[in-house]
Amino acid sequence: MRSHFCGLVDESMIGQTVTLCGWADVARDLGGLCFIDLRDHEGIVQVVAEPSDAAGNAAVVAAAAKVHYEDCLRITGVVRARHSVNDKIRTGKVEVLATEIEVLNKAEPLPFHAHENAGEDIRLKYRYLDLRRPEMQKMMRTRIKLVQALRRYLDGRGFQDIETPILTKATPEGARDFLVPARMHPGEFYALPQSPQLFKQILMVAGFDRYYQIARCFRDEALRADRQLEFTQLDMEFAWVRERDVQDAVEGMIRAIFKEVIDVELDAEFPRLTWAEAMRRYGSDKPDLRNPLELVDVAELVKACEFKVFTDAANDPDGRVAALRIPGGAALSRKQIDEYAAHAAKYGAKGLAYAKLDENGAVNSPVAKFFSEGAFAALLAATGAQKGDIVFFGAGGYNKTSDFMGAVRLKAGKDFGLVAEGWKPLWVTDFPMFVWDDEAQRYVALHHPFTAPAVDDIAELRANAKTAVSRGYDMVLNGNEIGGGSIRIHRSDMQSAVFELLGIGAEEAEGKFGFLLDALRFGAPPHGGIAFGIDRIAALMAGTESIRDVIAFPKTTTAQCLMTGAPSPVPDAQLAEVHVMVRPKAE
Amino acid sequence: MRSHFCGLVDESMIGQTVTLCGWADVARDLGGLCFIDLRDHEGIVQVVAEPSDAAGNAAVVAAAAKVHYEDCLRITGVVRARHSVNDKIRTGKVEVLATEIEVLNKAEPLPFHAHENAGEDIRLKYRYLDLRRPEMQKMMRTRIKLVQALRRYLDGRGFQDIETPILTKATPEGARDFLVPARMHPGEFYALPQSPQLFKQILMVAGFDRYYQIARCFRDEALRADRQLEFTQLDMEFAWVRERDVQDAVEGMIRAIFKEVIDVELDAEFPRLTWAEAMRRYGSDKPDLRNPLELVDVAELVKACEFKVFTDAANDPDGRVAALRIPGGAALSRKQIDEYAAHAAKYGAKGLAYAKLDENGAVNSPVAKFFSEGAFAALLAATGAQKGDIVFFGAGGYNKTSDFMGAVRLKAGKDFGLVAEGWKPLWVTDFPMFVWDDEAQRYVALHHPFTAPAVDDIAELRANAKTAVSRGYDMVLNGNEIGGGSIRIHRSDMQSAVFELLGIGAEEAEGKFGFLLDALRFGAPPHGGIAFGIDRIAALMAGTESIRDVIAFPKTTTAQCLMTGAPSPVPDAQLAEVHVMVRPKAE
Repeated sequence: MRSHFCGLVDESMIGQTVTLCGWADVARDLGGLCFIDLRDHEGIVQVVAEPSDAAGNAAVVAAAAKVHYEDCLRITGVVRARHSVNDKIRTGKVEVLATEIEVLNKAEPLPFHAHENAGEDIRLKYRYLDLRRPEMQKMMRTRIKLVQALRRYLDGRGFQDIETPILTKATPEGARDFLVPARMHPGEFYALPQSPQLFKQILMVAGFDRYYQIARCFRDEALRADRQLEFTQLDMEFAWVRERDVQDAVEGMIRAIFKEVIDVELDAEFPRLTWAEAMRRYGSDKPDLRNPLELVDVAELVKACEFKVFTDAANDPDGRVAALRIPGGAALSRKQIDEYAAHAAKYGAKGLAYAKLDENGAVNSPVAKFFSEGAFAALLAATGAQKGDIVFFGAGGYNKTSDFMGAVRLKAGKDFGLVAEGWKPLWVTDFPMFVWDDEAQRYVALHHPFTAPAVDDIAELRANAKTAVSRGYDMVLNGNEIGGGSIRIHRSDMQSAVFELLGIGAEEAEGKFGFLLDALRFGAPPHGGIAFGIDRIAALMAGTESIRDVIAFPKTTTAQCLMTGAPSPVPDAQLAEVHVMVRPKAE
Repeated sequence: MRSHFCGLVDESMIGQTVTLCGWADVARDLGGLCFIDLRDHEGIVQVVAEPSDAAGNAAVVAAAAKVHYEDCLRITGVVRARHSVNDKIRTGKVEVLATEIEVLNKAEPLPFHAHENAGEDIRLKYRYLDLRRPEMQKMMRTRIKLVQALRRYLDGRGFQDIETPILTKATPEGARDFLVPARMHPGEFYALPQSPQLFKQILMVAGFDRYYQIARCFRDEALRADRQLEFTQLDMEFAWVRERDVQDAVEGMIRAIFKEVIDVELDAEFPRLTWAEAMRRYGSDKPDLRNPLELVDVAELVKACEFKVFTDAANDPDGRVAALRIPGGAALSRKQIDEYAAHAAKYGAKGLAYAKLDENGAVNSPVAKFFSEGAFAALLAATGAQKGDIVFFGAGGYNKTSDFMGAVRLKAGKDFGLVAEGWKPLWVTDFPMFVWDDEAQRYVALHHPFTAPAVDDIAELRANAKTAVSRGYDMVLNGNEIGGGSIRIHRSDMQSAVFELLGIGAEEAEGKFGFLLDALRFGAPPHGGIAFGIDRIAALMAGTESIRDVIAFPKTTTAQCLMTGAPSPVPDAQLAEVHVMVRPKAE
């Protein structure tokens, strides 16, 4: 239908007849002289219809005069040099003198104009109009390029791209499973996979050696702004490996694709932090290293003070007292300080103590009175505080205090413009194997129940479960966990022991994971892997905060597709065929 | 963990120390001299542990003596030339003299041995053991290579790989939808997509120009041997195109990937048959052109006979009387002829007339008596029948007669060894737009309701719906429909008219497809596309009859995963969270 793309017409084609297809981006009728900006996926070219003696000219000019915004057109014409060059577009030195204009599809007036700043709801309802905008095209194409680059990289290195089922078995964290009633098995259900975890482990037992998949995963949970019901991960698994084999391989991959897709050179070697160090210095297991602020532990310096909040935490082996010095922070008003306290409270803080040092070195702190003057000076000195700074103090349980002080650190980094430009990847390693779930009164796995512990000895693991370290690792970039993985348990006896420590009894384990335990018995090699969040990486590369900008048809935070209207009611007869019914509302 | 792959150890490495990881494929202990065939994904190498004076030797020999089938091992040793060369394996000129043997994971006795011919149920239950067999590895790797080749081809030609949702809206053929209850919307459901059809059309409206996706699709229907609940298609769509643009592009792609993946040169130009011609000559819309047999229409020659079955069909404008000559078929016994009749009956035949010509030219036919001698001779002559042949005759409605005579043609081709080796692709085009559904008493779409009719004029389409031809096309290979597509309707008024002809009222259309009708109003370019069945093409390339051989974790014909045990019952509390319950059994 077309001989060339609109956006690629150039000076080398002057004098040639071309046939172009595209949308009318702009159409102007200057009294018989008509200009149409014709747009396709490559860009825009100017088309002119001007009165002349040529046969059929009147029809062409008349057709041009009737063109409206977003009409689909097929235009034949001759390329010529443009009088007034437009430097802003690639085709700006030429225009096409139309000899034929065919209207392939008239467009009705649009619900919103591409150049206006429409609300997200209307953009999602008319997603095709939204996606037509050059900004959206660019972001989506960044994602496409990312996936292409990843595949090419892995295909070239012996990784096998293998599809795993979408209709599969309910998993242990079943509460987040999407369920699908089975027509042939009344009362039974498939579940959509939260990840291909067990299948990829099985593939290693099956001898595929290196696996990857750009895999759709599903998690039925309350949506936060940056989550979707379905999401895409680059899922990978390696047989016959230790941690560094996996880490070095994927670090090289990430470096290569950042270079290829957005021409960014990442560090030649990513820094490595243990989980303990990341929590201690940054109050986070996914620290943003672009932010130079660091927490300082000051428990030793407050043990003898008279402020119970501090002394309780300082004397508790599971407690923490941490300080964060913000250079120039003395400028914060009382109101702004309250905002910091409120921010910390969102992460569980019961209060946020502070000390300001004004330009003269005078200290203003509600907690100073609990210290001897020397002790408070020593405390401030330990934080590195100088004139004009503020120091925030948090105290309480170790993890909670780390969390909220980490949140304060992020806010301060942003508020004070301390976050450097650029890309700061790192590895976080040596995670705790288990975390104690107060509510359930049992251990839960920090990564997942298939993560190998650092110790090989089952008795030792049992004896030291609380402090056990796993062989899990995360890749973090600018404060985002972009990848998470581990060496897996490859021995059946160890897997059973870990299930037991997690409160999964032998019978339950057999019912849910019998096939895994079997597989580990029949020749399972040591193996490990990782999964990367494609949506997040694409958003980072595209320079957008929202993963919805790099998903063609995203759902809202209320789990709806505004374009198609999913989800929707279904006739009862259709439900009957799959042996379910809508549950009457609870009284 | 390893320095080399087992299957790639070769003579160039003689004298080198290597560390290998793999499974014990065979382990023999010849009284202190032990041989282990160590296997990884690249192949097998022989490892020897023999008594020597070297330090630690006794431990190595002792460890080797304890190795059993499928143990996971890590072996260090020195490559040396082999005394008795084994030409059957790539590494057959060398062996590895072990200096260290580490057992990474002992294997328990396996439920079946890779070299035995186990039943499919046990193979599916222990899929990891089944997949470990070299035959399965080879078939799966053919599929992986196919997908890789397709992606590389399309990525290099400007196609955009875009993911479309898995959780989407119920479609018109809703009876086959998998439903997913929505937690946040009590009483509402998502549906899994039977194909990304509407999304890919929307992507064309959105300006992506060329789209592809290796897409998972879902159809909840009774499983035949060659179907799966979830299947994979190469889904493609093109904007600004006519039929030949799509067909030529994908024909080139299929040729390229057959060459690349299995080194087969397909025809430089695929033959093209209209649907009408395919039905007439082969009794099938997916004819296997490797089979030389063709149907012959003989209605004109039987109109005057006295056999009512023939005359009724011959005088019905919607009827057909077709003959199939099978060279050498006179050798069929009475019992074998009955088998043909039974086979035809499965496809709806009420009977199957025949005429045998023996070696002397004598005719044996139960229907000869209904003809004058000359008329029967003329009938046989029209079929090209010669001494030693059999001719089958079918009569009845056009499509049904074509169907069962097509089935007879296929059976005869197989039985008489007439099917040539090789690959016979073709295009089938010009399908009927609508087929009349006797049960529903209305038209249904032969392709789908978004397929464009060959005429642009709505009034003309309405007037001639019965004979209307669509712009659909199928790619057929060796009797398999491997791809199907069409030019789509891109005008809102035409789409509404087609919905109406299909009995979908304006309100229903708006509710189900309002977003499509909207999209067609706001600047929808002409577009079309195609989808290829990846599972089937992979099976054809791998030389297997069953698509289950090219799917890592297939389901059975009873829709179960024998490995994981999906589907399975789910606690009622979990169902309550998504607002459904199992339906009490109907009384």
